[in-house]
Amino acid sequence: MSDAIKIVYETGAEILEDAAGLRARADAAKERLYAGDMDFTGWVNYAARLPEDLLSDIERTADEIAARCKYFVVIGIGGSYLGARAALSFVDRADSKATAGRPEVLFAGFNVSGTYHANLIDKIKDDDVCLLIISKSGGTLEPSVAFLALKKLLTEKYGREEALSRIYAITDEHNGKLRAESDNNGYKTFILPPDIGGRYSVISPVGLLPLKAAGVDIRALLAGAVSAESEEMIDLAKKFASVRAVLEQKKTVETFAFFDPSVEDFTAWSLQLFGESEGKDGRGVLPVGVGISRDLHSLGQFFQDGRQIFYETLLFIENPTHDITVSGEDAGDYTGRSFSEFNRAVLEGMAKAHRAVDIPIIRVFIPENSAYAFGQLVYVFELTCAITGLLMGVNPFDQPGVEAYKKGMLDYLRK
Amino acid sequence: MSDAIKIVYETGAEILEDAAGLRARADAAKERLYAGDMDFTGWVNYAARLPEDLLSDIERTADEIAARCKYFVVIGIGGSYLGARAALSFVDRADSKATAGRPEVLFAGFNVSGTYHANLIDKIKDDDVCLLIISKSGGTLEPSVAFLALKKLLTEKYGREEALSRIYAITDEHNGKLRAESDNNGYKTFILPPDIGGRYSVISPVGLLPLKAAGVDIRALLAGAVSAESEEMIDLAKKFASVRAVLEQKKTVETFAFFDPSVEDFTAWSLQLFGESEGKDGRGVLPVGVGISRDLHSLGQFFQDGRQIFYETLLFIENPTHDITVSGEDAGDYTGRSFSEFNRAVLEGMAKAHRAVDIPIIRVFIPENSAYAFGQLVYVFELTCAITGLLMGVNPFDQPGVEAYKKGMLDYLRK
Repeated sequence: MSDAIKIVYETGAEILEDAAGLRARADAAKERLYAGDMDFTGWVNYAARLPEDLLSDIERTADEIAARCKYFVVIGIGGSYLGARAALSFVDRADSKATAGRPEVLFAGFNVSGTYHANLIDKIKDDDVCLLIISKSGGTLEPSVAFLALKKLLTEKYGREEALSRIYAITDEHNGKLRAESDNNGYKTFILPPDIGGRYSVISPVGLLPLKAAGVDIRALLAGAVSAESEEMIDLAKKFASVRAVLEQKKTVETFAFFDPSVEDFTAWSLQLFGESEGKDGRGVLPVGVGISRDLHSLGQFFQDGRQIFYETLLFIENPTHDITVSGEDAGDYTGRSFSEFNRAVLEGMAKAHRAVDIPIIRVFIPENSAYAFGQLVYVFELTCAITGLLMGVNPFDQPGVEAYKKGMLDYLRK
Repeated sequence: MSDAIKIVYETGAEILEDAAGLRARADAAKERLYAGDMDFTGWVNYAARLPEDLLSDIERTADEIAARCKYFVVIGIGGSYLGARAALSFVDRADSKATAGRPEVLFAGFNVSGTYHANLIDKIKDDDVCLLIISKSGGTLEPSVAFLALKKLLTEKYGREEALSRIYAITDEHNGKLRAESDNNGYKTFILPPDIGGRYSVISPVGLLPLKAAGVDIRALLAGAVSAESEEMIDLAKKFASVRAVLEQKKTVETFAFFDPSVEDFTAWSLQLFGESEGKDGRGVLPVGVGISRDLHSLGQFFQDGRQIFYETLLFIENPTHDITVSGEDAGDYTGRSFSEFNRAVLEGMAKAHRAVDIPIIRVFIPENSAYAFGQLVYVFELTCAITGLLMGVNPFDQPGVEAYKKGMLDYLRK
């Protein structure tokens, strides 16, 4: 497959040997994930199992939303928005995204900045709007209060009845405040799969509904996810996970470096995936996003000469959608050369400089900015993350530490 | 001063005692910076020394640019764009920013993504455009090739003569490729102060020209920077620097957490300032940007339960420009409460949760999103960073590690 993700390791022979020694455990971890008897593994093989009637319902609803609004505001935090945002930034090929007549997707409720939300309301208030609230419980503060502010806007704009008809929800099938409100108010809802955690949920209604509303070819995205279940791609994930598990014992920080701004939001999604899955029990490496070339002129100094606490995962698009060939009377030696060639030179220059100071490097080559490639990339990363966690001996699907700040926050508000 | 930055420490008594022990050395470091006999300290006291004729020239030129274009593209990398971008995102008070009739400022040349630059060209091509190229030498690859692509657009659009009249440059007074080109082509230029490094340059023509073009009140910004030279504010910076120098010996990572998206780009500027100044000789803590509440639902798990490698600097706006009070029939207990109160609750909840696992916390309270507050904040951070570096025994003004990737990149292109 020429159009599949490839991973190249420059980590030194010793780390690859140690990783190869984990092979049997990586095989067992993969089998355990696929056995279906572990909690929160609903994302495993989900794309292949997605019922046609659910997919059709998502598409129909997304088309209805697209016909009704200029702005589609998705309210959610963490896994409820990072995946959709990643895909919207990543997918830019015309054969993967038909944006004519589709709304702009905006996000709310991932902070409680009055400035952010006041500016958002100011932007959308004179055009048609639909809302999507994504929350398992409906109780989390940030999306709850953003939802209240946006519902108020819609009620004032459209009157209560039409306002309620413009609200869509993804929530628990049976329980919680948002389920009760949805039933009372007649929101069109999709079920948040109970066995899929937020950070593994982009390939589920959580990601698919807003992406289809924005015009992304979600069937291609699903086909990409399915393609990542070939034996070859699963082997790719097992090896990536094994190398990461070895490096977790030697390093403190994993930098995820992107060479194209279209990958910046995917990087943010990756930080949640890996940070929340592996950072527990005093374990894990801190995942940090790095924008290239920008950060070579800022943090690059630290990477090169500061404390050697890193390994780095480089995310490189092999065939970008757009390229520019340099010309003009001042172009000199650059005449006829292209931005994609320069970007490759940045990759090679950075890798050479970092090899010289023994930073272990993992290069992830992503074929193109298509929906198919995005689906494949997401599934490879999810599988890699889950296997790494199992190899480390942590539960890659819980997040007990997230509750601590929520409790402190509610204590403060009750005072 | 009620409108000044305040810093509150929750680091434990021992760290504060150790920091107090550095007082004499912090005093000496400050004196050394102000003595004027150290290289690259041109930023020290710069705002107070800025000649009125230079300031007037910047304002006149910025007004001319504003009258001539809808899009003003600033081409630069690292310190040549992060500071201006930080101010543009931060300053949102109407009394600090008059945007009517001013161009949108866009940035280019901080990566070599063909997709990014093709999309940028597509956005601006049908409207009036001016360019600002900021480079000491004119030789750095990324801004050079972005400049070539944008010059080509302007030449095709306006013809050679008018195209050249729409190009402005900030570069070395005497030397380099860009100086020669500017002289040959008659670009209006400003001098890049030779004793100010990129990451300390936002309060210089580098930041002031694009900010004034965008309508920012740069005289208020300069007044803010001058206000940071009061004895009280310099003491604030000395203590901040001393605490950071102590923590550098105990921790691996400093997270800079922002509670309002308006502070996100300031955070990115801070990462360059601290990472490039302190990360050398195998020293320094890695500065990492964290968006709140977003990252409490992603990396928050790691902060709480992963490896305890952090201390955190919280950047909180005390009086945000916009607020929203919650109301509506579903608002329940939240009725009548405001987003700014919720954001404060997030701060307190996070601090409580992190204190419980002994993460040292430094709270930086920023009075408001004004140009004055921005100038003050920048100068406090620059002084803090320089003093921290001197306390650590590293040179806070060089960046030898940045050259390594550039060399590798040019080697690759020559092949």
